[in-house]
Amino acid sequence: MAADTGHAPPPAPGLFTDRYELTMVAAALADGTADRDCVFEVFARRLPFGRRYGVLAGTGRLLEALPHFRFGDTELTALREQGLTDERLLDWLAGYRFSGDIAGYAEGDLYFPGSPVLTVRAPFAEGVLLETLALSVLNHDSAIASAAARMVAAACERPCIEMGSRRTHEEAAVAAARAAHMVGFASSSNLEAGRRYGVPTTGTSAHAFTLLHDDERSAFQAQVDTLGPGTTLLVDTYDIDDGIRAAVEVAGPGLGAIRLDSGDLPTLATHARELLDSLGATRTRIIVTSDLDEYAISGLMAAPVDGYGVGTSLVTGSGAPTAGMVYKLVERDGVPVAKKSKDKVSVGGRKHAVRRHDADGIAVAEVVSSDPIAPRDGDRDLVVPLVQAGVVCDDVTPAEALRRARAHHEQARRALPQEAWALSRGECALETVNV
Amino acid sequence: MAADTGHAPPPAPGLFTDRYELTMVAAALADGTADRDCVFEVFARRLPFGRRYGVLAGTGRLLEALPHFRFGDTELTALREQGLTDERLLDWLAGYRFSGDIAGYAEGDLYFPGSPVLTVRAPFAEGVLLETLALSVLNHDSAIASAAARMVAAACERPCIEMGSRRTHEEAAVAAARAAHMVGFASSSNLEAGRRYGVPTTGTSAHAFTLLHDDERSAFQAQVDTLGPGTTLLVDTYDIDDGIRAAVEVAGPGLGAIRLDSGDLPTLATHARELLDSLGATRTRIIVTSDLDEYAISGLMAAPVDGYGVGTSLVTGSGAPTAGMVYKLVERDGVPVAKKSKDKVSVGGRKHAVRRHDADGIAVAEVVSSDPIAPRDGDRDLVVPLVQAGVVCDDVTPAEALRRARAHHEQARRALPQEAWALSRGECALETVNV
Repeated sequence: MAADTGHAPPPAPGLFTDRYELTMVAAALADGTADRDCVFEVFARRLPFGRRYGVLAGTGRLLEALPHFRFGDTELTALREQGLTDERLLDWLAGYRFSGDIAGYAEGDLYFPGSPVLTVRAPFAEGVLLETLALSVLNHDSAIASAAARMVAAACERPCIEMGSRRTHEEAAVAAARAAHMVGFASSSNLEAGRRYGVPTTGTSAHAFTLLHDDERSAFQAQVDTLGPGTTLLVDTYDIDDGIRAAVEVAGPGLGAIRLDSGDLPTLATHARELLDSLGATRTRIIVTSDLDEYAISGLMAAPVDGYGVGTSLVTGSGAPTAGMVYKLVERDGVPVAKKSKDKVSVGGRKHAVRRHDADGIAVAEVVSSDPIAPRDGDRDLVVPLVQAGVVCDDVTPAEALRRARAHHEQARRALPQEAWALSRGECALETVNV
Repeated sequence: MAADTGHAPPPAPGLFTDRYELTMVAAALADGTADRDCVFEVFARRLPFGRRYGVLAGTGRLLEALPHFRFGDTELTALREQGLTDERLLDWLAGYRFSGDIAGYAEGDLYFPGSPVLTVRAPFAEGVLLETLALSVLNHDSAIASAAARMVAAACERPCIEMGSRRTHEEAAVAAARAAHMVGFASSSNLEAGRRYGVPTTGTSAHAFTLLHDDERSAFQAQVDTLGPGTTLLVDTYDIDDGIRAAVEVAGPGLGAIRLDSGDLPTLATHARELLDSLGATRTRIIVTSDLDEYAISGLMAAPVDGYGVGTSLVTGSGAPTAGMVYKLVERDGVPVAKKSKDKVSVGGRKHAVRRHDADGIAVAEVVSSDPIAPRDGDRDLVVPLVQAGVVCDDVTPAEALRRARAHHEQARRALPQEAWALSRGECALETVNV
């Protein structure tokens, strides 16, 4: 924590908040409703068009942030400067510390329309304050995880490498690398994701490194001298055939991998494999990058490719950059409440949820109900306690939380029916049944 | 800077970096090429499909981060733990401080394909390290600003309010609020954007506040008691007509505004206007929110709407969530260099750029050249110095930088030809001319 690298301005998670949350708290403190016992629920009304399932991600990041979601001098001064001068509000904020309960789906689990992925029970004022932070984290991370899971499925057993940092906000990049690793990406280019979450990081060189040198061969030589012959050489700066020949000459047939970053990848990969084999580099792997998404990955299934580097489409959710989850008050003093609207359906009352499985352990339905659900064989309770009386239940390191979410995702995913893996647009893999 | 609100883990902008940048530095240090005089250029090969112009945003945020882009103990330890153990590299990083020059378009300016929006001149190792951070910031912020500018244009003189924080990563939300304000959004819901950048913040209440209360009228009463009759009351929780009548009864005909957040907004707004007028609330404004984008805003032009709240589509770039800018080595020791690729065209050499205007001051071309451009009447030099010998040229506060970018954008935008404002898909408003 070297002081010289402290990024100004200081972070202030309490202000990752929409102003209306504070004006609501102010008004509720004034009329005595701030303490009413409330239940807020996070859910998605629908999945992105044609998607078969969603992946819940971000819960761990939210739990990391929660203890720091406070209002100190910096925040209170900022609020005054923005005209939020109600003294009762500011006093209350100064003492704010979330004291309620949070339950939800385990991070990495799948979700479907209406799945109650997060439930916050707290006095109104305490619970309403968390809306923006909770949704920011869950909507972003779930969008990335949901897209990434499709890429991992399309790649079958071949490794996917996350390299999208430069295509998204610098902090979102770290969260994206985390979400991708959760659903099975092997590694990331993002060094901060390595530091915070233990995501394995990889990467060797860009075209700039070749262009820096007088010729391609000197660049390869420099890279091999420093990183060893097991490195990945980027061979498409000038002529790919010349590049591959130079790469094998410099590194020897034990060259780790080549990377192709342009052109018609199925054709090029096939050609590169033949050339590498003819040069004796039969175990040199071929990594492809260049605007890949789940469809392009799937289209390369027949090509001799050993790994996929994915950037833009991953960090932008492959067409669905946000998960569309909402944070709704569903219960107040034990009474179910809901907005009446034809186009934005909400169901009042705190929800229970189980995933129902058949005798072979294959998931068949997402059962959601405001009443307790009579258990059947093969049901898995989806809602687990996360925070009790303001204290995070399972206070593990960020890296350990990610490891657990990765394992949980793998398990949940294995139970999905076969048709869930189709990339084509279709129905949700599981129907949400309201009982 | 109250310690109790310090968000763990500590930020480390030096690690907002792709691993391959460090392996390139290591290899270049080893073979003596690390000090070669290099020019890197940031540009977009194309605009998002059908867009007429792009808006450059993020430069100010990048300049804010630059002095903190260092490698202290935290970062060096993290690198070792990730297997980057080359001592020469780590020693060099420990002493790293950017000492080069950066020039570029002034923040808020427009850009077109090939516009050299940022140029970094530095020894290779110093310059290559900035690739990820520079692209993360510029690609994200420019995507948001470019989408936001279309919304502002569609809204004509009616105010737009940014309220997308919950649909994007919590830090990206702050940057999005900043980018939106730069191009003309009146305000944002994001309190941290208010603190860091002086963006005006607004917001009053959500449906949860109405649902918290025993009936709608008590909720309105509580809000008016605390925020005054000039507040905005959300009237669509139950029945809109009843809601509007209750709102005017509680607040009086001086009620500031109502907000509609669901349903068929053109019809509802027209009806609401008639009802408000009939109740004597002729100056009560109508604010609409609910999945608005530039097209929906445009479609409401004939409706009696006084302001637009925009969320999801803004923070996701309205279909183009990243700007697609790249960071390329274009010159080494004074020699132009470029990758040879059919699908990824790059032109070597450091670029000059002017925007050419006709006698009426209307922009007619973006002139870009590796040679100095012979000036004509009406030419505006687009590339301005930003950092010299490692020192930020115009070291103003973040809020002041935003104010200047906002003013600069307004000026640049005013010079665009009329057809630039079309929302329909079309050609770039200006042709990029390479001379």
